Amino acid sequence: MKQDINIAVLGGDARQIFAAERLVQCGYTVTSWGLCGQAEGVSVCETPQDALRETNAWLLPIPLSRDGLQLNGTAMTMSTLMSLLHSGITVFCGMPGERFKEACLACGSTIVDYSQDEIFLLQNAMPTAEGAVAIAMNEMRRTLFGSEALIVGYGRIGKLLADLLVRMGVHVTVAARKARDLATAELHGCRSLLLETDAEGQYRLPIPKQDFHVIWNTVPSPMIGREVLQHLHRSTVLIDLASAPGGIDYDAANNLGVKTVIALSLPGKVAPITAGEIIGNCVIRYFEEGGDGT
Amino acid sequence: MKQDINIAVLGGDARQIFAAERLVQCGYTVTSWGLCGQAEGVSVCETPQDALRETNAWLLPIPLSRDGLQLNGTAMTMSTLMSLLHSGITVFCGMPGERFKEACLACGSTIVDYSQDEIFLLQNAMPTAEGAVAIAMNEMRRTLFGSEALIVGYGRIGKLLADLLVRMGVHVTVAARKARDLATAELHGCRSLLLETDAEGQYRLPIPKQDFHVIWNTVPSPMIGREVLQHLHRSTVLIDLASAPGGIDYDAANNLGVKTVIALSLPGKVAPITAGEIIGNCVIRYFEEGGDGT
Amino acid sequence: MKQDINIAVLGGDARQIFAAERLVQCGYTVTSWGLCGQAEGVSVCETPQDALRETNAWLLPIPLSRDGLQLNGTAMTMSTLMSLLHSGITVFCGMPGERFKEACLACGSTIVDYSQDEIFLLQNAMPTAEGAVAIAMNEMRRTLFGSEALIVGYGRIGKLLADLLVRMGVHVTVAARKARDLATAELHGCRSLLLETDAEGQYRLPIPKQDFHVIWNTVPSPMIGREVLQHLHRSTVLIDLASAPGGIDYDAANNLGVKTVIALSLPGKVAPITAGEIIGNCVIRYFEEGGDGT
Amino acid sequence: MKQDINIAVLGGDARQIFAAERLVQCGYTVTSWGLCGQAEGVSVCETPQDALRETNAWLLPIPLSRDGLQLNGTAMTMSTLMSLLHSGITVFCGMPGERFKEACLACGSTIVDYSQDEIFLLQNAMPTAEGAVAIAMNEMRRTLFGSEALIVGYGRIGKLLADLLVRMGVHVTVAARKARDLATAELHGCRSLLLETDAEGQYRLPIPKQDFHVIWNTVPSPMIGREVLQHLHRSTVLIDLASAPGGIDYDAANNLGVKTVIALSLPGKVAPITAGEIIGNCVIRYFEEGGDGT
Repeated sequence: MKQDINIAVLGGDARQIFAAERLVQCGYTVTSWGLCGQAEGVSVCETPQDALRETNAWLLPIPLSRDGLQLNGTAMTMSTLMSLLHSGITVFCGMPGERFKEACLACGSTIVDYSQDEIFLLQNAMPTAEGAVAIAMNEMRRTLFGSEALIVGYGRIGKLLADLLVRMGVHVTVAARKARDLATAELHGCRSLLLETDAEGQYRLPIPKQDFHVIWNTVPSPMIGREVLQHLHRSTVLIDLASAPGGIDYDAANNLGVKTVIALSLPGKVAPITAGEIIGNCVIRYFEEGGDGT
Repeated sequence: MKQDINIAVLGGDARQIFAAERLVQCGYTVTSWGLCGQAEGVSVCETPQDALRETNAWLLPIPLSRDGLQLNGTAMTMSTLMSLLHSGITVFCGMPGERFKEACLACGSTIVDYSQDEIFLLQNAMPTAEGAVAIAMNEMRRTLFGSEALIVGYGRIGKLLADLLVRMGVHVTVAARKARDLATAELHGCRSLLLETDAEGQYRLPIPKQDFHVIWNTVPSPMIGREVLQHLHRSTVLIDLASAPGGIDYDAANNLGVKTVIALSLPGKVAPITAGEIIGNCVIRYFEEGGDGT
Repeated sequence: MKQDINIAVLGGDARQIFAAERLVQCGYTVTSWGLCGQAEGVSVCETPQDALRETNAWLLPIPLSRDGLQLNGTAMTMSTLMSLLHSGITVFCGMPGERFKEACLACGSTIVDYSQDEIFLLQNAMPTAEGAVAIAMNEMRRTLFGSEALIVGYGRIGKLLADLLVRMGVHVTVAARKARDLATAELHGCRSLLLETDAEGQYRLPIPKQDFHVIWNTVPSPMIGREVLQHLHRSTVLIDLASAPGGIDYDAANNLGVKTVIALSLPGKVAPITAGEIIGNCVIRYFEEGGDGT
Repeated sequence: MKQDINIAVLGGDARQIFAAERLVQCGYTVTSWGLCGQAEGVSVCETPQDALRETNAWLLPIPLSRDGLQLNGTAMTMSTLMSLLHSGITVFCGMPGERFKEACLACGSTIVDYSQDEIFLLQNAMPTAEGAVAIAMNEMRRTLFGSEALIVGYGRIGKLLADLLVRMGVHVTVAARKARDLATAELHGCRSLLLETDAEGQYRLPIPKQDFHVIWNTVPSPMIGREVLQHLHRSTVLIDLASAPGGIDYDAANNLGVKTVIALSLPGKVAPITAGEIIGNCVIRYFEEGGDGT
């Protein structure tokens, strides 16, 4: 069956190189155009048309396009890309726009947004957690071992980061809004802190009763406001892992001179090999297991 | 507010002693009848009527009754107990029968089944996991360190047990039916094994391709059948943590001479202090936080 | 070379069965007499003379003899055993007496006391540590997770036990006499407590400033005296891992009603397979690497 | 007693700031000159003479001098410094030259080289290990989790690094020359690899039978030669933690295009606060416990 599937990998960052190599290792025939480096075992084509010829699957980057105009990592316009769509192909891409989704639908191709794949999200939590640790190690002036750390939010990333830190000998406090999450964090060796609700009923971090050497926010809504920032120790390192607009009051942080690090899209930056393999595995699971994590 | 709440603790096993002590430590006034030992700071009454006088909350055992006739751990009949119910009280109990629930409802008392409390269930996973480890240590003739272990199921108990074993240097394989759970297990340092479906569409453990020194089942449906049992190494220790009817084909196991250990209700057996505190904390959360884990 | 070495395994407890099996797995020809069970791949002989015929190595038990009169686990007298010694053989045994050593020397056989082998001692620390944990789990009425534990002594066993407990989520304090050991324990996630010296200059545990749920002693000299015992919480579990006379004032403990568990020779009891493999590996290292751990 | 001890802290890098603060926190009176930043609670003097006035202890940097001419971090000559020595003071410094030692001796002051303090060395292994991890995270293009790592040498740093990596989910192999060290590494969850001896009897890493994603060397003698370098995977990250001349054949590495990172003096670079506290603690132990780790 694998021998019947030819996959074209187009554009993107270093992750797509390693995604392509993963597909080759797994037995697929892979052509490419517009990769940012050489992938072992992959035919490099001179034009996208050449790469797409006789393929029944396309692997496109995440995000598909940064500006809505060009395919990420290439000079090809999205219009050109869409003009090449046809029925019978499966198009794997990350965070496609509405127009692209409609174009796929219109011409009978199947679109798979791997950025929504539950296992993709789960597995990317590890490079994110390691990247979060690396940033802290680079920014802090003390060892993580023995230091006091706070993690705001206890989802996929908060959980994995907390586990990693506890094993590294860090004293970890987890702040979350659900009693269930706090109980789970305690069973994983963390202390727990209940988020409070403000006058508008929004959850936010209360002013902590202790100093922290490092704080990671993982919640993409206003969590760490001026009052908290005012009470932080001058050497506290504040790292925001939440997607825009993040969870920190940056105006207040700037005014108060609190140093913050915004850390987005860590998997592709800190571990493109691992992150590329995770993308390649999404394609493999789709064809072999029909697997979407459920 | 605590000073307005008087709690009567009646019957049960050793857990209720430590639940009562937890309530006292937290500032509540506690009376008791029918405990199986002395709880510090708790008034012991000669009759249940004395213990219940002027209380606004009752803490009853888990299970509430073993036979449906008598209050667990006492000679008091359930009928007598129900005759004492009245409006305005909150009755905490574990696994009550329908008749008792209706009796509470009928007379205007509030019933809280703490065996359904999500945090109760979460926190009990730790004594269960430690008990599961202790059984393995007692039954196995080799160290857990360096041994090959299989956990069937990856719910609350499977997850905590897997984490504990990995940290103890055990090579852990997790068998589950969801790709998402297998991916999570891998991120926690385990190998993974997909459950298969039999002809009737039931999930079950496939015949493993390796030997395991110990296998824990956590799934309360037929997981480990004759074919698997036939292939186990003679020295494999098989431990069933799932509630009745368990997950192992016991007839086949007996015929084949495979040794199995049925391990139920571990928290009360291996760690009554911890398990009692967990029960006491359910009461405390109810009054202080309205907390049910959500 | 292995094919030139024939090994006879005589007497002892279950460990010798698994030691013999380990030698077979490794390619040696093994005969046996007086084992307490069947070892796979090992020829069972009717007399010790038969088993020893044409062998160039003997594997004898640990201890070699319990009473100085008979070979451990058999009815053969030590005199008979010694009468069978001859030149050119290597005799592996554990804790031989002086008479036996002299007899070997006198007749030109090489004696190897594997109980002195540094790797034997190191590797036995793991079954000892796991056995120490299992005893605590069986004796304590709360989970190890979250409990307060004290380890007196930080040698081979104290170190491994401390590491294991920290990973299990126990709050571990290590008491030792060297600042270096305390610093090492802190780097391994433990708190530290300096042993004090009494009027005679003997080291001993000072009265701790906190309660412990469990205390393990690993030092074979008087560490835990009456003053400390008087201050222990009634539910503290006290486990002595040190060889006789141990480190606890047992008279005082009995008078005070403090419960103590004496836990000796754990490897053979809790993990005879692992402990037997460790013995077999001593023989293997001797012939293959000349290895004694240095 | 502390009130009788006045300590002057002179020169050095950021560590000396935090060493000075640690001394203040501990109750000592501290003056300073030539620090590279402000230390809380420490009097800043305009001249070294002012700082040294009425002190009975000096805390000097590590290394004491980088060029043998000037006090590290200052423009003061070593000659001037030596001219200020007098009897009755205790001079703490790291890696002093022979001339300085003799000068101290000659004028009756006590010199303490804290770089030889066993606890200083032990405790600095933690920032070194974390720094070694941070470098790997920054240089590798995959997650440490799940990767294959080799540590050459199993001393203070190798041990702590191996433990840290194992807990982070790395597959760790330890290469060492003593069977005892290999056995210990295995008990800590690592695989082991025996160093071989070359024709001259020197220990060195044999050509590994597997690929490693990252290799740390901790042994300050030629360990990793041309043959090994030739067999490394192109993406292997090679980190040398050993003091000059290190353990890698750098000429061969350059010729072969193998990327290497030389990582020296990590504690002061990655964790000056922790490293400074470690220095401060040497002074504190000296006065309070007479402690040198024995």
